[in-house]
Amino acid sequence: KVLWTVLVTLLGYASSFPVGDDSLCTAEELAKYRIIFTGKWSQTAFPKQYPLYRPPAQWSSLLGVTHSSDYSMWKKNEYASNGVRDFAEKGEAWGLMKEIEEAGEKIQSVHGIFSAPAITSGTGQTSTELEAHPRHPLVSFVVRIVPSPDWFVGIDSLNLCEGERWMDEVSVDLYPYDAGTDSGFTFSSPNFATIPQETVKEITCSSPSHPANSFYYPKLKILPPIAQVTIVKIKKSQLGLSAPFINLPAKSNEVIDPVS
Amino acid sequence: KVLWTVLVTLLGYASSFPVGDDSLCTAEELAKYRIIFTGKWSQTAFPKQYPLYRPPAQWSSLLGVTHSSDYSMWKKNEYASNGVRDFAEKGEAWGLMKEIEEAGEKIQSVHGIFSAPAITSGTGQTSTELEAHPRHPLVSFVVRIVPSPDWFVGIDSLNLCEGERWMDEVSVDLYPYDAGTDSGFTFSSPNFATIPQETVKEITCSSPSHPANSFYYPKLKILPPIAQVTIVKIKKSQLGLSAPFINLPAKSNEVIDPVS
Repeated sequence: KVLWTVLVTLLGYASSFPVGDDSLCTAEELAKYRIIFTGKWSQTAFPKQYPLYRPPAQWSSLLGVTHSSDYSMWKKNEYASNGVRDFAEKGEAWGLMKEIEEAGEKIQSVHGIFSAPAITSGTGQTSTELEAHPRHPLVSFVVRIVPSPDWFVGIDSLNLCEGERWMDEVSVDLYPYDAGTDSGFTFSSPNFATIPQETVKEITCSSPSHPANSFYYPKLKILPPIAQVTIVKIKKSQLGLSAPFINLPAKSNEVIDPVS
Repeated sequence: KVLWTVLVTLLGYASSFPVGDDSLCTAEELAKYRIIFTGKWSQTAFPKQYPLYRPPAQWSSLLGVTHSSDYSMWKKNEYASNGVRDFAEKGEAWGLMKEIEEAGEKIQSVHGIFSAPAITSGTGQTSTELEAHPRHPLVSFVVRIVPSPDWFVGIDSLNLCEGERWMDEVSVDLYPYDAGTDSGFTFSSPNFATIPQETVKEITCSSPSHPANSFYYPKLKILPPIAQVTIVKIKKSQLGLSAPFINLPAKSNEVIDPVS
């Protein structure tokens, strides 16, 4: 009974004060990073119902934010905001940008927004710069899977700060999520609103457990990553010129297929 | 004869040294701007062949750069680069990003790249921040018209610096351009490469002078602007939080139709 009270009290604090990973960041100054998003959604890796026409498999613009633990863009097993819903369903960025702005105004939980151009095929790369701040060291972003009912990939609150240092490089494999707002089962399903709305769920090779689902591969243990993101610190000596692109291929679709 | 020699000499200088508008910028430090792009491609303003399905009228990601007069992203009546061609025809950003990077490396003519999310309808807004430098005070950007053969809107080398001051705000109406690389006449024409490639041309209500052209409106004197861009200086007191969105509507499609 006493333990329970302590827990509830802690939760009370958690919802009103900034007590997250980011409160421990004592790194100095701002840090600049290059973020590189690589689509790995090839027909070889994901043969089932692979979209070839109108539209072929591709990725929306990338929309991201650097923030404190007082803000959350999206979270697994929680309800998507209206902004995330419109972005995941239709690629509309404006509502989500407004939500981020309001979080910045009201609770000063946001440092900056960043975006990178869309990729017009399933495999390919896009990139932009972002800036993190010791009080706003977390990175979140979303990229819509096109076509799809409300599916996306992204990162939720990745901390770029390690105590008193900024991380030099971090790379993460990405898997598909369902925003819980449209009940379509396949890439090209017609719109079919989920009422009541469900929470954000990871889509795996066995869940949703229905053979019609575009990612249902009963013979696999896990899906191959459908995308990957790499976030690299830009050294001060590189600022301003070309650092962003170091070591990237000349053509974005020179990406090696993970399966072939 | 003497005058002619002087002219040739000046042209010689112009191609090897930075002698453009930007050489006159004596403003101090960097300047941060918010760029807001507004699509005005409504069915009311542009009824002819207005694309309603697969895909409906929309705008690609915005890709832009701040630079010196030694770099040119695109220019009316000149040939489009391969990067601009791929962006105008297919929305592929990577090649153009690499071209900008190389210009930055080789002749230090680029300060930074910026991009803003795509707009998924003909009317609507998107926005991002950009940074200008006294040696790189020019802004250029492109946004592909979707669907279209190779049509885009954009700005070529707009100078944000006025002598020793940075401009506070600038707003420009935008009209469609043809990248000169695809001979399609209508929004949804199949691909049909223009060989040899032609130069970048403005599309007007009378040019190309052919009734099949999607922008051919023989009763109009000029087309209504199909888009608009506003670039606003971010005051230092606004940096970091929410300044980007000041005075923008809650929903991006609350744009007032210029004709209705």
